[in-house]
Amino acid sequence: MTIQTVSTNKSYGGVQGVYRHASQATGTDMVFSVYVPPHADGAKLPVVWYLSGLTCTHANVTEKGEFRKACAELGLIFVAPDTSPRGPDVPGDPNNAYDFGLGAGFYVDATQEPFARNYRMWSYVTAELPKLVAENFPVDARRQSVMGHSMGGHGALTVALRNPHRYRAASAFAPIVAPSQVPWGIKALTGYLGPNKDNWRGHDTVALIEDGAKFSGFLVDVGDADNFLKEQLKPELLQAACTKASIPLTLRRQAGYDHSYYFISTFMGDHLNWHAERLKG
Amino acid sequence: MTIQTVSTNKSYGGVQGVYRHASQATGTDMVFSVYVPPHADGAKLPVVWYLSGLTCTHANVTEKGEFRKACAELGLIFVAPDTSPRGPDVPGDPNNAYDFGLGAGFYVDATQEPFARNYRMWSYVTAELPKLVAENFPVDARRQSVMGHSMGGHGALTVALRNPHRYRAASAFAPIVAPSQVPWGIKALTGYLGPNKDNWRGHDTVALIEDGAKFSGFLVDVGDADNFLKEQLKPELLQAACTKASIPLTLRRQAGYDHSYYFISTFMGDHLNWHAERLKG
Repeated sequence: MTIQTVSTNKSYGGVQGVYRHASQATGTDMVFSVYVPPHADGAKLPVVWYLSGLTCTHANVTEKGEFRKACAELGLIFVAPDTSPRGPDVPGDPNNAYDFGLGAGFYVDATQEPFARNYRMWSYVTAELPKLVAENFPVDARRQSVMGHSMGGHGALTVALRNPHRYRAASAFAPIVAPSQVPWGIKALTGYLGPNKDNWRGHDTVALIEDGAKFSGFLVDVGDADNFLKEQLKPELLQAACTKASIPLTLRRQAGYDHSYYFISTFMGDHLNWHAERLKG
Repeated sequence: MTIQTVSTNKSYGGVQGVYRHASQATGTDMVFSVYVPPHADGAKLPVVWYLSGLTCTHANVTEKGEFRKACAELGLIFVAPDTSPRGPDVPGDPNNAYDFGLGAGFYVDATQEPFARNYRMWSYVTAELPKLVAENFPVDARRQSVMGHSMGGHGALTVALRNPHRYRAASAFAPIVAPSQVPWGIKALTGYLGPNKDNWRGHDTVALIEDGAKFSGFLVDVGDADNFLKEQLKPELLQAACTKASIPLTLRRQAGYDHSYYFISTFMGDHLNWHAERLKG
């Protein structure tokens, strides 16, 4: 598999790159960003995966996430995929809504038409892109972790719960934790996976935990001024599920913070330090 | 004078705001951003002015500048104005070029038609906006400093040299230092100030220093992979002028860095620390 370089910029002593490749999983070109911190020749570095939220591409976190300083200090590679397939032939939301289709892949492999061909973001972020990144960047594949925001927080937590031996750490900013129970999730999972809710459980953090999935622990930040907190995010559902399943959860309700990158960037350093602790050695 | 709040977001314990007001100087509405760090009730804080480069608005540095962490730690207010008047009645470059007119005010008060009415960015950033900010934010007006990027580096250095008692520190990322001698500057100063180069000297850092202007010292970073370094920036001209005039200059040529915010954000913390040292007490 080959990748094209869209851009590279030196930053904090490392290289922030943006790359494009023809994805087998989605049947489209996909763009992603990778920050490689300064490192010794020949070194293999741990990698943190960042899954973005609704409407985002790789660019939002790459420009606004303020992760490079911490990644440079901690020696972490940081990878940010897109949130859906894109292109003139990719079907989107019939009403061009922001919460389904383009920019809203929800990190599932769709089974429903007309989405099943392209909307295979689960396969993309858990299989195709990790292989591509490992082939093209100085990655130590034994040391990976995952984080995300909102829809990407949902992605990060579900990816971790279903691959607990691959990811040593998982954290989230303002995640959707129970998509089966909230409007964004119900719309997306119905559209991509069909109306049978049994088929949604593998893509619902709370349901995965209820069904026995385990993980070493999660760090989750939510802002108490987040407009989506009560209707879409419901972190109390994650707290209850983790408590019942004895999964360690550090849930921080940050006073005055909203759903934006002004919130994410504030706590990005904390998250990366938390990941780095777990990615050592 | 009143200001409208466009948005506020909590970030690093403080508030990142964006505001709009009807400017007397430019005859247009103007938008600017202000970050106010966490502080004790009633405290008055030093303020750092950031002047942006060609094509930018307040938004570029606000989103990509990575200044909030350092400003929160150091207790600095950070203000980012726009780079030109804007609006349907504001004349721009006749060919819609990026380097003149909209987004390219060059921090001068234009004397040439049709620009003289609106393009009054010198008055805007040195008089009207400082008064407005002092009236609406917890500013200690005795403790101000100024920095900028590219065209805004030109702005920062000229503003400082002509107001050495108001600004305690001045620094720049990849500044235009001798606009009278480079294509961007010659085009802009001709367009705004007319062909008589004698009228340009008050808006040319090197010329101001040659004419006797003094300042306590400058910190300047340039990337040696900056595409504009040799034709437009020419930091060696600033170095020669400062040496001759005994103005302390810390000029750092940063290996591998370009003209982008990936460069700026890398060294933003250094600059803010340098400013904070000079804004103490």
